[in-house]
Amino acid sequence: MSHFFNVKTLQEVLALADTFSPVAKESVATEKALFRVLSEDLKAREDLPGFSRATMDGYAVAAASTFGASESSPAWLTIAGSIAMGEVPAFEITQGQAARIATGGMLPKGADAVVMIEHTEAVDELSVEIYKSVAPLQHVIEPTEDFEKAAVVLEKGRLLRPQEAGLASGLGYPELPVYRVPKVGIISTGDEVIPVDGTPGPGKIRDINSTSLSGLVEEANGTAVRYGIVKDDPAELKRTIEDALHDTDMVLISGGSSVGTRDYTVEVLSGLPDTEILVHGMSVSPGKPTILARSSGKPVWGLPGQVVSAMVVLKIAVIPFLNRLQGMTRPVRQIRVPAVLSRNVASAQGRRDFMRVSLHQGDDGLEARPVLGKSGLIRTMVHADGLLDIGEHVEGLEKGHRVNVILL
Amino acid sequence: MSHFFNVKTLQEVLALADTFSPVAKESVATEKALFRVLSEDLKAREDLPGFSRATMDGYAVAAASTFGASESSPAWLTIAGSIAMGEVPAFEITQGQAARIATGGMLPKGADAVVMIEHTEAVDELSVEIYKSVAPLQHVIEPTEDFEKAAVVLEKGRLLRPQEAGLASGLGYPELPVYRVPKVGIISTGDEVIPVDGTPGPGKIRDINSTSLSGLVEEANGTAVRYGIVKDDPAELKRTIEDALHDTDMVLISGGSSVGTRDYTVEVLSGLPDTEILVHGMSVSPGKPTILARSSGKPVWGLPGQVVSAMVVLKIAVIPFLNRLQGMTRPVRQIRVPAVLSRNVASAQGRRDFMRVSLHQGDDGLEARPVLGKSGLIRTMVHADGLLDIGEHVEGLEKGHRVNVILL
Repeated sequence: MSHFFNVKTLQEVLALADTFSPVAKESVATEKALFRVLSEDLKAREDLPGFSRATMDGYAVAAASTFGASESSPAWLTIAGSIAMGEVPAFEITQGQAARIATGGMLPKGADAVVMIEHTEAVDELSVEIYKSVAPLQHVIEPTEDFEKAAVVLEKGRLLRPQEAGLASGLGYPELPVYRVPKVGIISTGDEVIPVDGTPGPGKIRDINSTSLSGLVEEANGTAVRYGIVKDDPAELKRTIEDALHDTDMVLISGGSSVGTRDYTVEVLSGLPDTEILVHGMSVSPGKPTILARSSGKPVWGLPGQVVSAMVVLKIAVIPFLNRLQGMTRPVRQIRVPAVLSRNVASAQGRRDFMRVSLHQGDDGLEARPVLGKSGLIRTMVHADGLLDIGEHVEGLEKGHRVNVILL
Repeated sequence: MSHFFNVKTLQEVLALADTFSPVAKESVATEKALFRVLSEDLKAREDLPGFSRATMDGYAVAAASTFGASESSPAWLTIAGSIAMGEVPAFEITQGQAARIATGGMLPKGADAVVMIEHTEAVDELSVEIYKSVAPLQHVIEPTEDFEKAAVVLEKGRLLRPQEAGLASGLGYPELPVYRVPKVGIISTGDEVIPVDGTPGPGKIRDINSTSLSGLVEEANGTAVRYGIVKDDPAELKRTIEDALHDTDMVLISGGSSVGTRDYTVEVLSGLPDTEILVHGMSVSPGKPTILARSSGKPVWGLPGQVVSAMVVLKIAVIPFLNRLQGMTRPVRQIRVPAVLSRNVASAQGRRDFMRVSLHQGDDGLEARPVLGKSGLIRTMVHADGLLDIGEHVEGLEKGHRVNVILL
């Protein structure tokens, strides 16, 4: 007796992400590009580092000069000079010679390795004893070892973590081609919802979803745009959705997507121009009453009103769509953390369950403990470290079972 | 023949974090408080939700009216009315009666459970058949079930994730007492380092560390303040450190902390007033030449110049100090992800190794593959998903060994 139609599995919903297009491109300063997504391939403009570079403080040598050296039988080398940082050495060395060098310095001609200072003892200004042999290229980075000129070093669609942004700096890109930050409109609905600074009478509840959903959007590097609270009034909801569609790239409506007495969201969405309902119901728990529409080419979501359900749907289904709008060629890898289940849990077959769990470090890995409490309780999310994904064809899991947890 | 003194283990270094004080407190709008840290306990101002609340669409009933109901033998109830969202029901129900209710609605007096609409069939406007019995409190959140008035719901020192910020909204806090965002001064040093928009001659290299270290600071919710590149000139370095100490809460200096030819950082720090060198050398790899000083009560770090070493030290040692300045009562939990090692790896005893690994989802959990390449290569960080922590007393690990990985 379900009132839903067009119920889809999570996998079917996620497959729709690629039917939406990334937002526009722009150019930003590399120092502002953290957690943006590259909109073009990035190539190496020169070799990196571009010269033979010491990775240790010590002496640049021809490795062969050190062969056979040991504590009991050190090699004795002549010091040909010191290498100034950032300079091309003004001299060459030959077999039997060494040059003082610091980490990052350029090896002189004739040198192919560096002996760590810990394995040497200067005899005087002109000679040094070497206590350990080095192999050719030891403690040296070769000119093209990091990247070779013209090679693609970061592909279009890559998320720029600190190391990718650092690499772009090293390659001489003070600006980067990226996608702009998608804006996500957030609408809370329901006659029972009042603003955070209000005092709720009986039957009323303050707006939690605007804060928690905006937080998840911003954690995923989107810009949240809040449209406040809309009463259970289809005309007002329609106006607000139209405003949000005009100004943002994706719209989230929480509440009003359940069956029965107030199925406003799907009703209002169905009446908008250029709009198609793609999903009406998703076979996951919590989160069944999820709606997804395409309106003027943009994704519009009807999320459950209950905060936990709304957050779970956002995490498992909406964020991959945000990643698509951001231009990622693949969604942010959701690392699933292996853990051992602390107790038996039940699950309905034919439905994919996402159970809140806390994680506890044990001697033998992590333990996942189900957080007890109904999905209307924000407390359960505060106690949770992650979501345990229980497949559709699983009736339950036993204590001690190895599980994978999506981090919250 | 080490030139270091005061070499400490990572554990000893981390134990020093608590000797520094959190930054000042302030009050910010809850919608701007994401990833801030609470500076006072937060109490519930009222019960949450404060009334008996339906968690499903359906019918509010006295559970006893449904006992024994089934598909083949439904219970027949009289509909006493509909409950408007956000209103106190104007009527009570008795045994044998039901009231239409939507998720989030307030139960009328006399009702103690909700029957899901899927398990009912309205006969006409005045009566409904119930196909499944419910237990008392089923599909209902009790008035104090989320939080009870005056209870501490979030303790001082808690990081505000989306769910904690949402909870604060639900409790009626439009503003929150938090610690301000710590500022972290970032200084790159070295005669060989040139700006990102420069063209490096032989022996020179563009500044990668300012970007990658700022990125890690901002990822950890600090504010990075860049002081640019300082040549290997003690007087200039001293002036820049003094500026940074004046304007920020923690200072990071990369380069100039190695032994031997240019140990400027420790020399300059030793000459500053009100300054104590706490750490000079850390028994980890990469990252041995790490310096930590307390100057005018603020932590000042000398980090290795090589980008990978600097990033690893920041991740494993500096971020916990940032967390302390942020006011966290415990550092952000660094979840360690269990994985299986893909090949044998060697490690020196007496030194804690942090090896870069990429993670690959297999059928039976994650596989950790060591990323090959010297620690001077930024490429190795771009390919890495995490750091494998190899203990001091371990000589090496074998293929197939179960390991724990710190995510990057």
